[in-house]
Amino acid sequence: MIRYLTAGESHGQALVGIVEGIPAGLSIAPEYINHQLKRRQMGYGRGGRMKIESDEVEILSGIRFGKTIGSPIAMLIRNKDWTNWKRQMSVLPRVEDVEKITIPRPGHADFAGYAKYGLDDIRNVIERASARETAMRVACCTIARKLLEECGIFIGSHVLSIGTAGPAKRSALDRRIAKLTEASCGAYKITEEADLSEVRMLEPRVSAKAIAEIKRAQKNGDTLGGIFEVLVTGVPIGLGSYAQYDRKLDGQLCQALASIHAVKGVEIGDAFTIASRVGSRAHDEMRMKGTDIVRTTNRAGGLEGGVTNGQPIVLRAAMKPISTLAKPLRSIDLATRKEVRSRYERSDVCAVPACSVIGEAVVAPLLANAFLEKFGGDSVDELRRHRESAK
Amino acid sequence: MIRYLTAGESHGQALVGIVEGIPAGLSIAPEYINHQLKRRQMGYGRGGRMKIESDEVEILSGIRFGKTIGSPIAMLIRNKDWTNWKRQMSVLPRVEDVEKITIPRPGHADFAGYAKYGLDDIRNVIERASARETAMRVACCTIARKLLEECGIFIGSHVLSIGTAGPAKRSALDRRIAKLTEASCGAYKITEEADLSEVRMLEPRVSAKAIAEIKRAQKNGDTLGGIFEVLVTGVPIGLGSYAQYDRKLDGQLCQALASIHAVKGVEIGDAFTIASRVGSRAHDEMRMKGTDIVRTTNRAGGLEGGVTNGQPIVLRAAMKPISTLAKPLRSIDLATRKEVRSRYERSDVCAVPACSVIGEAVVAPLLANAFLEKFGGDSVDELRRHRESAK
Amino acid sequence: MIRYLTAGESHGQALVGIVEGIPAGLSIAPEYINHQLKRRQMGYGRGGRMKIESDEVEILSGIRFGKTIGSPIAMLIRNKDWTNWKRQMSVLPRVEDVEKITIPRPGHADFAGYAKYGLDDIRNVIERASARETAMRVACCTIARKLLEECGIFIGSHVLSIGTAGPAKRSALDRRIAKLTEASCGAYKITEEADLSEVRMLEPRVSAKAIAEIKRAQKNGDTLGGIFEVLVTGVPIGLGSYAQYDRKLDGQLCQALASIHAVKGVEIGDAFTIASRVGSRAHDEMRMKGTDIVRTTNRAGGLEGGVTNGQPIVLRAAMKPISTLAKPLRSIDLATRKEVRSRYERSDVCAVPACSVIGEAVVAPLLANAFLEKFGGDSVDELRRHRESAK
Amino acid sequence: MIRYLTAGESHGQALVGIVEGIPAGLSIAPEYINHQLKRRQMGYGRGGRMKIESDEVEILSGIRFGKTIGSPIAMLIRNKDWTNWKRQMSVLPRVEDVEKITIPRPGHADFAGYAKYGLDDIRNVIERASARETAMRVACCTIARKLLEECGIFIGSHVLSIGTAGPAKRSALDRRIAKLTEASCGAYKITEEADLSEVRMLEPRVSAKAIAEIKRAQKNGDTLGGIFEVLVTGVPIGLGSYAQYDRKLDGQLCQALASIHAVKGVEIGDAFTIASRVGSRAHDEMRMKGTDIVRTTNRAGGLEGGVTNGQPIVLRAAMKPISTLAKPLRSIDLATRKEVRSRYERSDVCAVPACSVIGEAVVAPLLANAFLEKFGGDSVDELRRHRESAK
Repeated sequence: MIRYLTAGESHGQALVGIVEGIPAGLSIAPEYINHQLKRRQMGYGRGGRMKIESDEVEILSGIRFGKTIGSPIAMLIRNKDWTNWKRQMSVLPRVEDVEKITIPRPGHADFAGYAKYGLDDIRNVIERASARETAMRVACCTIARKLLEECGIFIGSHVLSIGTAGPAKRSALDRRIAKLTEASCGAYKITEEADLSEVRMLEPRVSAKAIAEIKRAQKNGDTLGGIFEVLVTGVPIGLGSYAQYDRKLDGQLCQALASIHAVKGVEIGDAFTIASRVGSRAHDEMRMKGTDIVRTTNRAGGLEGGVTNGQPIVLRAAMKPISTLAKPLRSIDLATRKEVRSRYERSDVCAVPACSVIGEAVVAPLLANAFLEKFGGDSVDELRRHRESAK
Repeated sequence: MIRYLTAGESHGQALVGIVEGIPAGLSIAPEYINHQLKRRQMGYGRGGRMKIESDEVEILSGIRFGKTIGSPIAMLIRNKDWTNWKRQMSVLPRVEDVEKITIPRPGHADFAGYAKYGLDDIRNVIERASARETAMRVACCTIARKLLEECGIFIGSHVLSIGTAGPAKRSALDRRIAKLTEASCGAYKITEEADLSEVRMLEPRVSAKAIAEIKRAQKNGDTLGGIFEVLVTGVPIGLGSYAQYDRKLDGQLCQALASIHAVKGVEIGDAFTIASRVGSRAHDEMRMKGTDIVRTTNRAGGLEGGVTNGQPIVLRAAMKPISTLAKPLRSIDLATRKEVRSRYERSDVCAVPACSVIGEAVVAPLLANAFLEKFGGDSVDELRRHRESAK
Repeated sequence: MIRYLTAGESHGQALVGIVEGIPAGLSIAPEYINHQLKRRQMGYGRGGRMKIESDEVEILSGIRFGKTIGSPIAMLIRNKDWTNWKRQMSVLPRVEDVEKITIPRPGHADFAGYAKYGLDDIRNVIERASARETAMRVACCTIARKLLEECGIFIGSHVLSIGTAGPAKRSALDRRIAKLTEASCGAYKITEEADLSEVRMLEPRVSAKAIAEIKRAQKNGDTLGGIFEVLVTGVPIGLGSYAQYDRKLDGQLCQALASIHAVKGVEIGDAFTIASRVGSRAHDEMRMKGTDIVRTTNRAGGLEGGVTNGQPIVLRAAMKPISTLAKPLRSIDLATRKEVRSRYERSDVCAVPACSVIGEAVVAPLLANAFLEKFGGDSVDELRRHRESAK
Repeated sequence: MIRYLTAGESHGQALVGIVEGIPAGLSIAPEYINHQLKRRQMGYGRGGRMKIESDEVEILSGIRFGKTIGSPIAMLIRNKDWTNWKRQMSVLPRVEDVEKITIPRPGHADFAGYAKYGLDDIRNVIERASARETAMRVACCTIARKLLEECGIFIGSHVLSIGTAGPAKRSALDRRIAKLTEASCGAYKITEEADLSEVRMLEPRVSAKAIAEIKRAQKNGDTLGGIFEVLVTGVPIGLGSYAQYDRKLDGQLCQALASIHAVKGVEIGDAFTIASRVGSRAHDEMRMKGTDIVRTTNRAGGLEGGVTNGQPIVLRAAMKPISTLAKPLRSIDLATRKEVRSRYERSDVCAVPACSVIGEAVVAPLLANAFLEKFGGDSVDELRRHRESAK
């Protein structure tokens, strides 16, 4: 079973991650991970920081001569701006005065974290409850993603909407996606195409509208959220289980997505649409196509009863607008308990494109674990041999 | 930490559950659990089975003289129709011919489960991947719910929409809910009110519309899904954590809801609505009201950064229409690989009201664990003493 | 991954267990489990209760027509004496006076449990912290044991010593065991042979001595412990891992054995003996025998670096004498805080033979999980196919 | 709940650890951890490497201004000899020939790991299945140890025997230890005293004998193991539970110790001695001393029924002799399948003193988790407040 833990503060010395349980013999190069880290930093509407730092991972263990050896993989992403933060983020006892933050930003963990941990400085919250944490999450999950790719399973994503800018008609886009995802590597193709757009959208007209909306928000000191879609193709039938509530793959995937910062809603397939339809228009009928069992629709998003049914997995996530606004919200100074305006820290206007890349990443370890449970193996060769034994 | 496992087939001898990690000294009577089981069986649009069986729990361990003693609690819900199923569901080797099911119902686990477990009879899937399993899930979770109540935390729910029948204007309903949930026990009040409606809706006009829609679906041999809302009031600040991805309470709650049969989408607060708004209209500003910090909105649904912020928790779940239709869908006979019509088993037309009751239940163990992590204690007295030590 | 939970009080209505994660298609009959339950009840030196109750398991779910179906397996062992305990162990609020126990027995959980859970009646402790709990543990673990057997892995045990009665010379016995365990099913053969002795010992002379010692202890109102050995044969190379501290199979097996009531010490191979030897006489040299790599000794007990090395697994456990003595120990009445004599409940004089049977059981789920991790599979067929793919 | 993962190869760039779940507000300085790392490197009989490297931890996250902030703590221990290993341990694909190791050392994970992970170079095993891994394990566990100390719980250890050099009479030593451990901080006092001996023994005469034995072994190209004792004082009553098999603290502690390299046996209290005694001489009778309940013996080692009883916890572990011998053992070259002599890598002659320090460390997270479960809290202040609320 793959497990991983991440650590690291946003302005601390480095982000750190350990991934454990990856079979031996998996080829993985730092560039492969760095590519995902770079994708996470892209997107129209990102603040200044994304330009300063081009994240790069240092692999400290678990990989030798380009391949995993069965041991835990440790990674580091250094903070390139550390010298400027050394004093404020020192591990050693405070010797000089460092200003404390006492005004929470609505929408952030600031207020809840401050109360929970009995802190007197909100900086101790925001340094961890920061989207920067997801850089290491992506790095860790990317190892599992590579394992899936070796097994013919591909993950992709694209942005459906930013603010009010979304597809005029879902059906046209959906048909195109359905077509593309017929191939095992379909999800990958979609992600490649989405990467060509600054907002990771598949339709140029919607892209343009979204960029305009981001510009407007920026001018107004405001921010935007949106909806993105994660797709997985090449998925074998039978991952996950209905046998016990916590083994349902749909629940697990929802947790993964809803654990990304600012993601507050998730649907599998057309969940919210289907909730208002009659059953005869809500399920995916089965047909024969030659000797294959096929479906003409994929409203279930590839999961029936918590188990993969061989169709592409389709997940959608709703990201709220970024809660650090240039035009700040009403808040309270917790030191004085006076009403004030929330402080502003350098921030993005819109991070939905980046969030979609994180979404691709976080589902990977869960799928890899479901795959390992079904096929088993201590090395990629063994895993492949097991999978092929069925044919 | 509370853990629970359930077991049992839909037409097997009994459903069985074990709940472990409940502090000692919690008063719990079978009636308390049976009340929840009964609520799970109600709702306009349920099939015949719900009338046959009024589920009743037998507590076999862990409770003595009306109180928990720190030991695991085992429960049984017997199948009152067992004599009619004895032969078909026998534990002992087959001695006579029992008909096998080989036609999967689209939307069900039938097809995926059959392939996954290498079965030759879909009955082996449908007996477990059945909504009946949730009866024991509700029983198990109800113990955690009682613990929360003893600590002043209340859970409730109501149905927002069934098919196309939903509130004309969300804002009026939302304001009323916001008002009701100002009290610690607000969620409970809402659930009591919802229980008065056959479809667990708070607005009589919408109720009537929903019932009409269910009638129509039934006549057409069709089924319906819908959206329900789970509310938690009396929640202390600081449950959950942003410190590690898998400790985020929002992700955990999404998993819990999406692990209920037919639930395919979940949102916290106004997630999908907020995804299309600007940030300045998406977060919950903070104000002083006397000496208290208050919010005028609760768009975040009580969770910021994966941690409770003292506001009511608001979760919404989308349930797909039931996939067993009287007017059956196209399917394949897996034995012959011929196209056929999916078989019909006695089923409900709409189970959204029941599903909302299950939703109330499944969030309880997660909240109780977050509460236990923060306050700790081997008995209810100790837990209370710890909580009060802060005041 | 196999998980299991047990529940049930010693004099409660029933013991209950749920086992989850067993692949489909495993043949399992109640008799197979009952056979292990019966073995757990045997042994010279058992008290009266063992004669009253011949434990029998009722399988309530997860098995259909003699085979597992992938769903959780629920089991019940009823208390045949329940009518006599109904009043004292009632789930319902106390209506009449039931005597409370306030005198803890040294060596039992009585004192610690009473304090931990804030109880006023030690009965609430002793009902769960009772060796009777292991009946259900054995039932649950026996399912995993059957899975191992299907994969050619066999578990056995025998008693090495009871009180001071042990083998005069370990080396002769060890050589015999080494010889027997050369076969895959060797452990099973040993256990069959041990079952012929009332004290589960392999040497008749030692058996006789042990029985004499038990008789003497009984006459003196005293009790006895001893040491038993658990053996596993047919173990593939490579179960467990050194990669992370908690994946070391040796640590996991030690936990399993030390979690049995009264077992306070565990060694793998000749651990305590080897601790006083030089390294050149402590390890298992490797030789070629035809085309096979072989060892001439098995001091490591089949585990090197926390991973199985293809040799039989050898575990030894030290069981303390039973702490309920007919000639009671000094204790304190916790109600009066006066020094008193500990109370006597009907009890065994010696339970080492039974404990060895429990030892066989508890290692099974861990080995099965290590096996599943390496070979993977949702059904016994799939598991076998994976294993054979290597050949 | 405290969790931790470690990563890192013996000659890799660095060892890495992440500890998660530590309450906020715990004072911790790198020196505190380095002190434990230094103790782990000491002891008569260590090889050359221990002198080269004085391990030092770099804290990369989770601690700010000398205190934990609730976030995961990441640590690094750099390999000071990295430049000499860069080529052999490169993360990047092999560009030049690096010699492979194909001869396993009996007693090591070499053979089993090579087979398990399908490797062609034993170096990939030995780099992780190396005692060096325990440096980071000690660092991680030391954070939990500091938390325990803040709560008045102290851990210590001493070496009982090395090879055949052990106490002439256990009883005298035991009485002295019993006396010392009457105080809450008794374990700490013992460890301080043991640290004064090069072999961490409490009796100078035995120390001298042990050193002589190590010298002799070294001269003979041989190695030694031994037995050490871990003690915990200041333990509250009621940690751990008998309620479910995997919550028994005795089983958990045995796993922790048996997961240390070369530890193959564990006993709690006088387990193996007591196994040959009658019950009346095996348990710890209870007496009143003023208003306190006391015990005159501690044969149970502080645990009854898997729960702490307020007495000091006493654990003993058997360490096998180091399996890398200067006078090598018979082995097989796995590349040629020819009989050869096992290779020699620079190694220690005896590491029992170091192992005892590791033993102190590994029990800490388990005790801290049991403590957190009982008392709960997100900060040290909250935890203390909860604990004091009982008084």
